[in-house]
Amino acid sequence: MQPKSNIVHLPVYQPGKPIEDVKRELGLSEVIKLASNENPNGCSEKAKAAIIESVSNTHIYPDGASVELTAVLAERLGVQPNQIIFGAGSSDIILMTARAFLAPGDETIMADETFSQYKHNAEVENARIVEVPLRDGRHDLPAMLAKVTPRTKVLWVCNPNNPTGTIVSHEELSAFLKSVPTHVLVVLDEAYGEFVNDESYSNGVSLLNEHHNLLVLRTFSKIYGLASLRIGYGVGHPDVVRFINQVREPFNTSRAAQAAAKASLEDDGFLQTCRENNLAGIRYLQAQFDEMGLVHFPAFGNFIMVDVKRPSSEVFDALLRRGIIVRARWTYYPNHIRVSVGTQAENEKFISALGQVLQEVTV
Amino acid sequence: MQPKSNIVHLPVYQPGKPIEDVKRELGLSEVIKLASNENPNGCSEKAKAAIIESVSNTHIYPDGASVELTAVLAERLGVQPNQIIFGAGSSDIILMTARAFLAPGDETIMADETFSQYKHNAEVENARIVEVPLRDGRHDLPAMLAKVTPRTKVLWVCNPNNPTGTIVSHEELSAFLKSVPTHVLVVLDEAYGEFVNDESYSNGVSLLNEHHNLLVLRTFSKIYGLASLRIGYGVGHPDVVRFINQVREPFNTSRAAQAAAKASLEDDGFLQTCRENNLAGIRYLQAQFDEMGLVHFPAFGNFIMVDVKRPSSEVFDALLRRGIIVRARWTYYPNHIRVSVGTQAENEKFISALGQVLQEVTV
Repeated sequence: MQPKSNIVHLPVYQPGKPIEDVKRELGLSEVIKLASNENPNGCSEKAKAAIIESVSNTHIYPDGASVELTAVLAERLGVQPNQIIFGAGSSDIILMTARAFLAPGDETIMADETFSQYKHNAEVENARIVEVPLRDGRHDLPAMLAKVTPRTKVLWVCNPNNPTGTIVSHEELSAFLKSVPTHVLVVLDEAYGEFVNDESYSNGVSLLNEHHNLLVLRTFSKIYGLASLRIGYGVGHPDVVRFINQVREPFNTSRAAQAAAKASLEDDGFLQTCRENNLAGIRYLQAQFDEMGLVHFPAFGNFIMVDVKRPSSEVFDALLRRGIIVRARWTYYPNHIRVSVGTQAENEKFISALGQVLQEVTV
Repeated sequence: MQPKSNIVHLPVYQPGKPIEDVKRELGLSEVIKLASNENPNGCSEKAKAAIIESVSNTHIYPDGASVELTAVLAERLGVQPNQIIFGAGSSDIILMTARAFLAPGDETIMADETFSQYKHNAEVENARIVEVPLRDGRHDLPAMLAKVTPRTKVLWVCNPNNPTGTIVSHEELSAFLKSVPTHVLVVLDEAYGEFVNDESYSNGVSLLNEHHNLLVLRTFSKIYGLASLRIGYGVGHPDVVRFINQVREPFNTSRAAQAAAKASLEDDGFLQTCRENNLAGIRYLQAQFDEMGLVHFPAFGNFIMVDVKRPSSEVFDALLRRGIIVRARWTYYPNHIRVSVGTQAENEKFISALGQVLQEVTV
């Protein structure tokens, strides 16, 4: 038996080494992971309590449509419940959107570099992928617009962009959306949106009334600290949400994830603490990079992409030997590493290790 | 924007009424749900403890490849770790298999009636669906074999079959697999396999060495009682598993689900209790149906499909008014309802209510 010819070249996901393995193999007592843009503050205590409360109903299927959670979120966002769809992380919404909208040969436009799952899912659907290079690490919206054809079905904008951390402004995005033909679904991925502290930043949900071909993605994996539970959502016009619902698995989110997400939405204090801690971490790391003479992209999420002026794979390996895991080996940025904001202690250990590594790895 | 033309006719999943709503609307103090083949014994206490222990790492992404869980399961099944893939329920494996193997126009063969997700996912992939009627509620393997063409990519066998509860024997299955051309992937869904108490029943995993085009599906949602957490698995040849891994989302199962599944595999006592309780429930219900003169399919899972000799939709409604939810409205079996085995108290209440309903709903 043979699979679809268009998937045989796709890379199989390679699991990261468990921290325990890294410790044992390298003889380290401590390993710090600043590689996955996780929340160093953990998650809301209210979320933890909600998970534990849900344990007694482990044997009962979850509410497939997340009715209670949807109601709470719709109220907060000021949208109707039929404008919201939940997924097992926003990556599940990406999968469903690709599956619902992309037939073989359809065109889809995305930045390069950006979050890998847009391309991965479009490849699975055998769509024609049109990648538009970033400009100064930012989405080049005019260049993306110029690539739109009658066959373009989905256009992806990651804001802030992963991995560069840059944003496009409300003004830019608004002008762009006015120009994009309505046959194109624009997916605006705001996975890191809650971290942004810049008045030029757009809240995608505010653009939904004007643009029915817009789908906004958010996640509970980042600022809400629920990465292990797999829950995120999409907000859009009821028609768009209905189409995506048509390919949704009946029970695509767990009871524990729904309960934790609902409790998280009721803990604004935790969110505010995370925002402040993250901003302090970003400022600390930026100041240290500046002092070390390292150029970095403006960072609006909970991570920074920094030019280490050496092959990032070597810097990655040298940091790993010191017990620090970051992300490297970006196709278009071979000399950049992406580092997540950790606790202040982790950030300081990372900076100290990076200083040593830059001495060790020659330019 | 328009989705793929082949998905616009698909039904949107309609959420079942929350039990609380049914209680309020019908003025009932108690509602019994025997509609989703859930485990009335709950889940293993070891699983609950594992979920609670996982809560402190809620903010950390799960191990995408489920390395630890895979190792434990591979050992138990006597297969290699690269023969196993985990999904968010076995329905996620169904989705991934369809996505990896079915291109538009490819043919896929399945029974009618059987589990709805085979057809749903094949429709999303725009495959040509070939449905083969059951014979006496059982898969008609010779008739399915006769439908195989050079374009057939995937053939689905649900054993025990949902919703009829019937099985095909090891002998039948083995002869069938010897005849199916190797270009066809046979998906053998054993979601209810652990309940079967019949020596003619096949353990699909034992057939893997001989048949590289076989994929066996299992789930933790049924006998293990982890339905709310979404975890199931596929076992097959390493090539088949690799192809499916190529379309897998990086983090498709949660940390809590992996932990609970691993703990569940280490609690054989719980499994044995569930098996015994289920068998007692099946025997009780069958005896009651016999006494009531109702014909039922031989039941090998944790549910029974019974002919109520009246339109099942009316019986469904009448049972609902008495606070009991079952499944009805099967296309090919308009006079059958499917009832899950509950606790003995629930089974007795169901039988009592059914007796009243059969008096009330005229033939």
